[in-house]
Amino acid sequence: MKKVKIALLGLGNVGRGVWMILNSNKEEIMKRSGYEVEVSKILVRDLKKERGVEVPSELLTTDFNDIINDDSIKIVVEVMGGIEPAREYMLESMNKRKHIVTANKMLLATGGDELFQKADSQGVMFNYEASVAGGIPIINGINESLTANKIEKLYGIVNGTTNYILTKMEFENLSFNEALKQAQEMGYAETDPTSDIEGFDAQYKLAILSSLAFGTKIKVENVYREGISKIESIDIQYAREFKKVIKLLAIVKDNAGKLELRVHPTMIPENHPLANVYDSFNAVFIKGNAVGDLMFYGRGAGDLPTGSAVISDIVSILRSNIDIDNINTVVKNNLWDKELYNIEEVISKYYIRLTVEDRPGVLGEITSVFGSMNVGLLSVIQRGRDIENENKVTLVLVTHYTKEGNILNSIDSVCKLNSVYKINNIIRMEEFN
Amino acid sequence: MKKVKIALLGLGNVGRGVWMILNSNKEEIMKRSGYEVEVSKILVRDLKKERGVEVPSELLTTDFNDIINDDSIKIVVEVMGGIEPAREYMLESMNKRKHIVTANKMLLATGGDELFQKADSQGVMFNYEASVAGGIPIINGINESLTANKIEKLYGIVNGTTNYILTKMEFENLSFNEALKQAQEMGYAETDPTSDIEGFDAQYKLAILSSLAFGTKIKVENVYREGISKIESIDIQYAREFKKVIKLLAIVKDNAGKLELRVHPTMIPENHPLANVYDSFNAVFIKGNAVGDLMFYGRGAGDLPTGSAVISDIVSILRSNIDIDNINTVVKNNLWDKELYNIEEVISKYYIRLTVEDRPGVLGEITSVFGSMNVGLLSVIQRGRDIENENKVTLVLVTHYTKEGNILNSIDSVCKLNSVYKINNIIRMEEFN
Ligand SMILES: NC(=O)c1ccc[n+]([C@@H]2O[C@H](COP(=O)([O-])OP(=O)(O)OC[C@H]3O[C@@H](n4cnc5c(N)ncnc54)[C@H](OP(=O)(O)O)[C@@H]3O)[C@@H](O)[C@H]2O)c1
Ligand SMILES: NC(=O)c1ccc[n+]([C@@H]2O[C@H](COP(=O)([O-])OP(=O)(O)OC[C@H]3O[C@@H](n4cnc5c(N)ncnc54)[C@H](OP(=O)(O)O)[C@@H]3O)[C@@H](O)[C@H]2O)c1
Repeated sequence: MKKVKIALLGLGNVGRGVWMILNSNKEEIMKRSGYEVEVSKILVRDLKKERGVEVPSELLTTDFNDIINDDSIKIVVEVMGGIEPAREYMLESMNKRKHIVTANKMLLATGGDELFQKADSQGVMFNYEASVAGGIPIINGINESLTANKIEKLYGIVNGTTNYILTKMEFENLSFNEALKQAQEMGYAETDPTSDIEGFDAQYKLAILSSLAFGTKIKVENVYREGISKIESIDIQYAREFKKVIKLLAIVKDNAGKLELRVHPTMIPENHPLANVYDSFNAVFIKGNAVGDLMFYGRGAGDLPTGSAVISDIVSILRSNIDIDNINTVVKNNLWDKELYNIEEVISKYYIRLTVEDRPGVLGEITSVFGSMNVGLLSVIQRGRDIENENKVTLVLVTHYTKEGNILNSIDSVCKLNSVYKINNIIRMEEFN
Repeated sequence: MKKVKIALLGLGNVGRGVWMILNSNKEEIMKRSGYEVEVSKILVRDLKKERGVEVPSELLTTDFNDIINDDSIKIVVEVMGGIEPAREYMLESMNKRKHIVTANKMLLATGGDELFQKADSQGVMFNYEASVAGGIPIINGINESLTANKIEKLYGIVNGTTNYILTKMEFENLSFNEALKQAQEMGYAETDPTSDIEGFDAQYKLAILSSLAFGTKIKVENVYREGISKIESIDIQYAREFKKVIKLLAIVKDNAGKLELRVHPTMIPENHPLANVYDSFNAVFIKGNAVGDLMFYGRGAGDLPTGSAVISDIVSILRSNIDIDNINTVVKNNLWDKELYNIEEVISKYYIRLTVEDRPGVLGEITSVFGSMNVGLLSVIQRGRDIENENKVTLVLVTHYTKEGNILNSIDSVCKLNSVYKINNIIRMEEFN
């Protein structure tokens, strides 16, 4: 049996998962890759830390030179996270013609291009299956299995934390803050949950997926982003009245070569396959012009699922050629140039919840503002008075398909009406057609 | 741009799909594969047939020699179906070192081994993504993305026709025969629907998937098989009472190295992701020891979805090496030997519907037979009398987990009771744990 030496940068959640699987599934990996995989060095910050796995202490190092200067190490697995020094370490590794496997969505989304180019110029492989949706093989799916397709649309539930929170809010009637607290207790949300709940994490992942799916360079800042922190239980209840559920969706659509890219809470029909993705599960739904509707569902995070994706990337390097010193790869990037939409140009239906004055004529005032901005209303629900303030009522509007710009203008004008106390929430609706 | 010539064997549903996509998505395929793909010959039976696509008539041939003797053809795409001459043509093509892409589940399941071995000895690629679940990249998923895993369980809805029929029966309260007729009118079922409704098609697919997932040789005849023709509307209604739905599942489980393989109608919890797979959609649900739960969902048949899978196989050959004359492949087959269970050894819960005499004491007689065979009963439902015969009542039993052998013995004995008129149906239940 041939042997290959690899190094891990990091032994946190993902690094531990990789280590555990390499041990427990040694035989499977050996038979399927044709190689015995040996971890010969692991970079960490703290040599003394309790790690919950038995790793021979001589493997651990705090000095990257132990890895970069060891020519017997053929693959570097970056699972440390963050921008620097992860970026520098990967570039240096590729300079030494080591292949890279990484799970680092933040770095890929913000500085991936430089890394891809380096891989290309050095003729090394650069794999990143674990960077989006953990154990779900969505990168490989797009890259290898959808090659015959023009991808028309992609919708992802790619953040497990927010999906867990929305599930708890829905089924246990928790407030956003209560659900967030539970997510933190379960270890699904970090102490500072901003990256998850405000949609940054999903934004990174959408940039990576879109770049791949459309063979173009998507900058993170061109992905419109809104998180779930403004969602209230009452919105979820209204959604159910419309036979919808609320999900944080990462959406990209190709309209004749022009892309719209956005991450935001979205009301989707309750019988759509994505609507049944609950708890911390992830899923990516794709519409290709040949394959039609396709969905991948699974665990978007966690040590073992993410480790599973990392190792599939290692095996794919090992299988790509018998002589792993001599792989020639073409990183398929930048095949097309694409125009992008501004969010104002996006066409959608909208759910709008307002608190308004309870007197005759108010409904008419409000609806006529929308009418004057060419926003048609599909339904209007007005509910009994606020218990605390009997002068206030809740008004829920659902619009026809309309440009977001028109919605924004309408809201501007509606806000100026004396009878409107508050715009509580605006949530886009998606009908997948 | 480099060019590659390929030949199609067959221009039916799938062949047409391949042709259409190669034309409509030419640019995508070119950019992603690095090759301009040219179909230089198409084998058919009837040169005069109206084909619904515009194919230059000089491409069509009824003589396989035109293909096998043309050294400029590098890839042969077998989409004709059947055992012979498809088998012979593929073997001859590989002898001439042409790579193979095939969609032929029947041939793969019954004689795949010979083909894999030939590919191995000739050093050609042999791809068959389209043979299972049409456009869903399940072969690639198992082969490339789950390499780090011991696959513990796999459950597939892999036959669109039966899933369509079961969906119609459930939502439109149709009888099996009415639903079958609709499926035939929609073009989902053949004039002779036996292969679909009696589970043969799913049996082939499970043999292919299991061979791949467990790196072992599974013979079709070792897959237990039962179709859906005995399912009645009333069974679907009872299922709903238990919060279950009925699906034709292809199941394989690895219990410490010993496999159980079976295709049969199954009651599954209505909130399981597979339960929400409706109409002619397919899905494959996998439990890996690293990745956890994973599901692939999409179109299991149709010209374009299946063509999408065929072309992804072509692209993967083109990408595998710059010099496509010189690919060295190892067909990863026969990695493990596995023992197999007999169906009598399988452990499951069972739903049993009987028609029995309506008199005091009958229920006791029946339940005591099950008790004496060590079959515990989880619930017993006895409903009002038969309208046509007031002496008959329906009895529905749900058992605890028990060996199928015990069930078969119990049924044998129950049948002998004078008070039992008929065993209407026995349906296994699956709880995915
Ligand atoms: N967690 C998931 O489920 C998941 C899923 C998909 C992708 N990812 C991505 O995978 C990466 C790793 O995530 P994680 O959750 O495993 O992170 P983590 O638990 O924080 O682990 C990070 C590891 O990297 C080491 N490290 C960090 N900075 C270092 C430095 N400057 N020098 C040396 N070692 C350093 C740490 O060493 P010490 O242990 O000594 O502190 C630790 O072992 C991130 O890019 C993340 O986005 C994670
Ligand atoms: N249909 C699907 O959605 C689907 C999905 C997955 C896999 N598959 C598999 O794909 C394969 C093809 O299916 P299909 O639905 O495309 O079949 P089909 O519509 O019956 O087409 C078969 C084609 O092969 C040609 N052919 C058959 N026998 C031949 C022979 N002896 N010599 C020359 N040409 C011959 C026929 O020629 P003529 O046109 O001249 O008769 C026809 O063009 C089968 O293995 C099937 O199991 C199909």
